[in-house]
Amino acid sequence: MTDVLLQVSDGRMRAVIENVTPSVDGGRFAAKRIVGDLVLVEADCFTDGHDSLACRLLWRLEDETAWSEAEMVPMGNDRWRGSFTAECVGRYRYTVTAWVDHFLSWRHDFARRVDGDDLRSAALVGAILIDGAAGRAKGKERTQLKGWATRLRSASDVLVLRALGLDEELAAVAARFPDRSLAATFPVEHPLVVDRLRARFSAWYELFPRSAATESGRHGTFRDCEARLPEIAKMGFDVLYFPPIHPIGRINRKGANNTLVTGPDSVGSPWAIGSAEGGHMSLHSELGTIEDFRQLVTHAQTHGMEIAMDIAFQCAPDHPYVTAHPEWFKWRPDGTVQYAENPPKKYQDIFPFEFESDDWRGLWQELANVIRYWANEGVRIFRIDNPHTKPFPFWEWAISEIKRDYPDTLFLAEAFTRPKVMHRLAKLGFSQSYTYFAWRNTKHELVEYFSELTHGEGREYFRPNAWPNTPDILNEYLQFGGRPAFIVRLVLAATLAASYGIYGPSYELTEATPLKPDTEDYLDSEKYQIRTWNREAPQSLSSLIAHVNRARRDNPALQSDATLRFFPVDNDNLLCYTKSDQAHENLVVIVVNLDPHHVQSGWIDLDLEALGIDTKTPYQMHDLLSGARFLWSGPRNFVQLDPQRAPAHIFAVRRKVRTEHNFDYFL
Amino acid sequence: MTDVLLQVSDGRMRAVIENVTPSVDGGRFAAKRIVGDLVLVEADCFTDGHDSLACRLLWRLEDETAWSEAEMVPMGNDRWRGSFTAECVGRYRYTVTAWVDHFLSWRHDFARRVDGDDLRSAALVGAILIDGAAGRAKGKERTQLKGWATRLRSASDVLVLRALGLDEELAAVAARFPDRSLAATFPVEHPLVVDRLRARFSAWYELFPRSAATESGRHGTFRDCEARLPEIAKMGFDVLYFPPIHPIGRINRKGANNTLVTGPDSVGSPWAIGSAEGGHMSLHSELGTIEDFRQLVTHAQTHGMEIAMDIAFQCAPDHPYVTAHPEWFKWRPDGTVQYAENPPKKYQDIFPFEFESDDWRGLWQELANVIRYWANEGVRIFRIDNPHTKPFPFWEWAISEIKRDYPDTLFLAEAFTRPKVMHRLAKLGFSQSYTYFAWRNTKHELVEYFSELTHGEGREYFRPNAWPNTPDILNEYLQFGGRPAFIVRLVLAATLAASYGIYGPSYELTEATPLKPDTEDYLDSEKYQIRTWNREAPQSLSSLIAHVNRARRDNPALQSDATLRFFPVDNDNLLCYTKSDQAHENLVVIVVNLDPHHVQSGWIDLDLEALGIDTKTPYQMHDLLSGARFLWSGPRNFVQLDPQRAPAHIFAVRRKVRTEHNFDYFL
Repeated sequence: MTDVLLQVSDGRMRAVIENVTPSVDGGRFAAKRIVGDLVLVEADCFTDGHDSLACRLLWRLEDETAWSEAEMVPMGNDRWRGSFTAECVGRYRYTVTAWVDHFLSWRHDFARRVDGDDLRSAALVGAILIDGAAGRAKGKERTQLKGWATRLRSASDVLVLRALGLDEELAAVAARFPDRSLAATFPVEHPLVVDRLRARFSAWYELFPRSAATESGRHGTFRDCEARLPEIAKMGFDVLYFPPIHPIGRINRKGANNTLVTGPDSVGSPWAIGSAEGGHMSLHSELGTIEDFRQLVTHAQTHGMEIAMDIAFQCAPDHPYVTAHPEWFKWRPDGTVQYAENPPKKYQDIFPFEFESDDWRGLWQELANVIRYWANEGVRIFRIDNPHTKPFPFWEWAISEIKRDYPDTLFLAEAFTRPKVMHRLAKLGFSQSYTYFAWRNTKHELVEYFSELTHGEGREYFRPNAWPNTPDILNEYLQFGGRPAFIVRLVLAATLAASYGIYGPSYELTEATPLKPDTEDYLDSEKYQIRTWNREAPQSLSSLIAHVNRARRDNPALQSDATLRFFPVDNDNLLCYTKSDQAHENLVVIVVNLDPHHVQSGWIDLDLEALGIDTKTPYQMHDLLSGARFLWSGPRNFVQLDPQRAPAHIFAVRRKVRTEHNFDYFL
Repeated sequence: MTDVLLQVSDGRMRAVIENVTPSVDGGRFAAKRIVGDLVLVEADCFTDGHDSLACRLLWRLEDETAWSEAEMVPMGNDRWRGSFTAECVGRYRYTVTAWVDHFLSWRHDFARRVDGDDLRSAALVGAILIDGAAGRAKGKERTQLKGWATRLRSASDVLVLRALGLDEELAAVAARFPDRSLAATFPVEHPLVVDRLRARFSAWYELFPRSAATESGRHGTFRDCEARLPEIAKMGFDVLYFPPIHPIGRINRKGANNTLVTGPDSVGSPWAIGSAEGGHMSLHSELGTIEDFRQLVTHAQTHGMEIAMDIAFQCAPDHPYVTAHPEWFKWRPDGTVQYAENPPKKYQDIFPFEFESDDWRGLWQELANVIRYWANEGVRIFRIDNPHTKPFPFWEWAISEIKRDYPDTLFLAEAFTRPKVMHRLAKLGFSQSYTYFAWRNTKHELVEYFSELTHGEGREYFRPNAWPNTPDILNEYLQFGGRPAFIVRLVLAATLAASYGIYGPSYELTEATPLKPDTEDYLDSEKYQIRTWNREAPQSLSSLIAHVNRARRDNPALQSDATLRFFPVDNDNLLCYTKSDQAHENLVVIVVNLDPHHVQSGWIDLDLEALGIDTKTPYQMHDLLSGARFLWSGPRNFVQLDPQRAPAHIFAVRRKVRTEHNFDYFL
């Protein structure tokens, strides 16, 4: 007997399990789902020869030890599927177990025997297997099985024997007590993160609290923000996100339009965190007190909204950490710290942390404490600034730390960087990720990018959050497209992605002037100065936004990304796509004119069969933006969109449910 | 400090490594290569922020502990590639290591600085890093680096400083001594199996030794086989494969044409192994002695051929194992053993082993000993009969056992079963796999199937061996297509797959009569009776086969499968594909008329650029079957094939290398 042979625990474990899905990097990372989701798990399972196999899906909450089980059924080509419902927020594990089921094999074999001697011989084999099942059963079932075995041994008439052997009811009893002593279990226990619904479906509104005052010239406060809550809620947003609200550094403070020249009124960038006033666990005093903040957090909830905080792990040169923890910064031989750079951008007002510090453990702990501090203040959504400039292992650890204590916490990764970096952050635990949406504007770009997001490998762990603008990004399309461009990009963001956000009031007021040509920076950016906004301005899109968000809330189809499908239109300026809910009951068709300047028209080709629409019956298209209803028929239909009037349709499809005389009823 | 944080070995390891390829099931199984192959390994490698990364490929023989290293270079999109040459047969391991290289980051940063103070500050930082490199260097290089650091510290003139900091030669020295203390290494050490060339490139000829006699009625012998060696070698085959050559059982022996009626002359099926004469380690006495067999093995080698043995792990009812090891069989309550079945086929002359025996360890050991016994007799290629009816863990263990002692051993899996079962066997260690080739006859089927084989996931571990016929498979196409069909299927097998085989002399003599309609069994099959063949018959394809095998030997393009590419022809009866060697120097274009009855013609569309053919210069097509040469030009060319004359072209492409006056030279 060789060593290697001894390593085979039991060579009689004949079931093979491969290719368990969902699987992120072979189980190194977790797939993501939402509470209430039906989690479908599949695997390739088979065995040698012609024996029958039984497969079970095993799952448990990570903190528990006992597995729950669900039967898996074969789908053809040795692929099996099972499912369970994710009933609570938290971390789960799942795997698959399978065994050669001799009772099932015997029954399958017995059904094909016709010869009398054959049947009698087979019956004796079956009786042994049924005795085995009886030994694993109890009470009435045990008695039933024992009786069955006895009768199989004694019956001799061929017809009686056949009927007895194939008894459906008894077979079902025996199948409940399988011999699993040689079951094989897939060695990887795949992790699964289950979040609350907002992780997948959310509408973000970003604003600078210091610009929330209604009067010109006054520094806005948390109380001003509170006064804005009704109108933001009315637009239909459910996450209100603030750039950093901590004390702003005074050393190298930036002036208006990112200049290095400041006056006494210069307010600086909120991302230059920390001053003598305090650091990441303090509030900028001009915004208000911690009590004001707590009240805002609470009042937001009464409006169905949550406050999201910005976590920017970096320091102004006068942040208290710089003197209290010099070991957390990288000092050069000349006694200075190199300020942050993201070429060609320079951040003279910001020192990065040195994550290769000998005291990296202390630094990690402190940074996690920052998040924990605000979580303790009731904040459960964190937008993480530039996570890609901090070590990846830190995020994996920090997110798991926070979620252990506050499982309903969500993290949005602000990383507009290389695709694999963005994906890694999502794998490590970020709940949502900014995307390249701002730079995907043509039909080809949008189709390619969102097909990849919704159907590529990342679909199991990368949840897109689409932003048409941010304080850093006023893209060319918005700069030159006028008001129609803002409508187009809003509809695209809100319907292509189940999570999206806008930076306002800049967005709804269609602010489109860049700092200078060929940049994406805003002129007079709120990053460096206080702005006062006229929210009542006639160009405001607030009413349209309310319609779009209403459509999102009313239609489950728009609340997830997995079902996104594009359909052909014979005009490259028109984009058509659909989304449906998991049950395929709610179907939404979106058509957008990507040309903000001209009327465009074309023929759309829907795959009615794939969409579950009867090809022979007309169906009603209910435009949720205009309220208009159109009757369509067949796969090919004509659409014309005037950007000045309405550059997009968001159609809810109403299928005809009944025809009675001249009345049509649509569901 | 929490427990989880303590588990992070060093949070300063900032390099990330993902998606290392080749990878079979995440490293659970080995990729396969051939001695002399350049093994390309790729990985996604990146880090946080903007620092420079260095990556190395690590590899070693599995039995050794020290890693060899090769530099990996970035290919864009964070993908890195490195390579090593597989210099010997055996098992290797490989993985990837990467680290943030502060010296490279510094140099990259330094090159972008222009300001004098900036440069001087940066030079001091660089001097520290270079001192570090000096500390890891020795002798002259250490002195060089120390001098460089000193000069960087003292230089003040901006131009001098810049030139000094960017010194290419000194940078190359410093880069040789990187600080790898925080290097991250991918945790999976991927296995790799390196075989000899014949694992990938082989031409098999199967014959029944008992039919090798030239005179009718006499039982053939190993000596008769020896006499056949020259003519088989002349056809160009390099593997001569025999069905089982062990004693044949007498109980339930099969008669001619698989009947249950036998007479005294019935020779039975060679797969019904074992009788009072002996079992799997004995020879059927009518074939000859062990000395005869040894001589045959040796003489085959002198003809450039190897003998492949059939390993069929099953027993005739009178095999000595049945009485010596009753625990290796599954006895029914009525005291019998159920004979083997592969519905609807019944094998009354064969008992399967019971792999769920309590003595499975003893059984495994004995079966491995059977292979070891013949390996010890000089046999190094085993064709395994029905491996899919034995437990998968057994094969993984047995193949690794045998290859540890005899690393040059090759195993062909005879499993025409479900795709995932066939793939699992290949993953477990089989060197080659029978395919579905026999049932892929139309253009669409061939394109789809061979595209999957050569470009699908299996390409790393599944080596196809294509058989147009076997003793069990005379497909419909051959039954009804006449002699052209045999030529077509031979050319397809021999050029679509680098390994192929025929069952002869049935094949080259175009034997096409089935046992009965709608079966694939041969009439008067050699499986159950002795046949005498007239190898000189006029219809013999032996000369054509010799041409085809000659083309395979002369053209490296035909010796591997990875480069197979199909090209469009505007006629569904014509199939066109190309293969090239790794260096893209040798290019072969194959055109086959799949219609064995009619002349077919059409226009072929080659992608000249992808094939490395100059689009502006004519190129010569040298038909290796007829010897004819055609001058082609541009991507579109006309082909016409008459099945009665020549149903296929195997073109070697001769590129024009020089034009001088009126003379053209082709390489």
